[in-house]
Amino acid sequence: MAYNIIDELINNLTKLPGIGRKTAQRLSFFILNMSDDEAKKLAAAIINLKEKARFCSVCFNIADKDPCDICSDPSRNKGKICVVEEPSNILAIERTKTFKGLYHVLLGALSPSDGITPERLKIQELLQRIKSGGIEEVILATNPNTKGEITARYIKDILKEYDIKITRIAYGLPIGSDIEFADEVTLTKSLEGRRDM
Amino acid sequence: MAYNIIDELINNLTKLPGIGRKTAQRLSFFILNMSDDEAKKLAAAIINLKEKARFCSVCFNIADKDPCDICSDPSRNKGKICVVEEPSNILAIERTKTFKGLYHVLLGALSPSDGITPERLKIQELLQRIKSGGIEEVILATNPNTKGEITARYIKDILKEYDIKITRIAYGLPIGSDIEFADEVTLTKSLEGRRDM
Repeated sequence: MAYNIIDELINNLTKLPGIGRKTAQRLSFFILNMSDDEAKKLAAAIINLKEKARFCSVCFNIADKDPCDICSDPSRNKGKICVVEEPSNILAIERTKTFKGLYHVLLGALSPSDGITPERLKIQELLQRIKSGGIEEVILATNPNTKGEITARYIKDILKEYDIKITRIAYGLPIGSDIEFADEVTLTKSLEGRRDM
Repeated sequence: MAYNIIDELINNLTKLPGIGRKTAQRLSFFILNMSDDEAKKLAAAIINLKEKARFCSVCFNIADKDPCDICSDPSRNKGKICVVEEPSNILAIERTKTFKGLYHVLLGALSPSDGITPERLKIQELLQRIKSGGIEEVILATNPNTKGEITARYIKDILKEYDIKITRIAYGLPIGSDIEFADEVTLTKSLEGRRDM
């Protein structure tokens, strides 16, 4: 009852992962003391993301345009496709500034025990892109864990009839980890050390 | 350039204290997957706080009403005033559910070397409330550190001519710490063990 507007923001912030009550309180008082402009930008970024986010119909990245900025960037190398599990993986790879090709997001990884079969992933869509021609290399950058490995091998198998180079990112990444949280250097080494599959 | 709308939220979130790039990314993707309703509530809570937050003209708490919900709550004991440094301290004390009186926020603590003299704090306003009568006890709940201690002693001195009980919260709190981050049990013990000053 008392202290409504601060509590309201605190309660909303505690719904976010890893934000406990005290962190939410600290953030709320920080936001209270932010400039109006900064606070409005933060709120607008939340609304904007929720309202405009959609999947790119080419690569299934999250973007506010279709095709996304990466797919429609004329300076990117259209002969290379880096296949990832999730849109967030693209952010991690883009931060390395190493890869100048295109992406393809599978929106998951194979996991038959969880009912994640090939049809549930954007594998057919990847195949269509390859059939359209012009692709020289597919870099399989699924996570270096069991599901990601199974997914990479599955895609490698279905692509073997096409005359394209198929590579897998190098195991510079610790096995069992997640690409999303790799540091830039490890991820760069992993991309540079990619090998034929 | 690429990946605008996610990056926009990530960049805005990294301006918050203790939120690094990876945490901001994790939060952004979480917000992306939140229900529209939840995300809108979060954004609205930020805007609402910035637009409606003001100081209560009685106690200088932050609220969206004037007087604030605590000052205008008929069930609170109007004979007791708990004096704190900052609005955030009220939140911490309210969480203990121990104190049913009113508050007075000084909006700082005395620190002559930083130019924080008594006129810069809401001490005159406290005096006015006491002169208006009906106050039996003033609980000095400034922080248990040097500035808070000096502030408590200063207020005790200017109030000694009035026939009211002046107490100081007990040192259940570790010296040098901040009320805002005390746990509920310590803070409750500290309130219960308050002594005459």
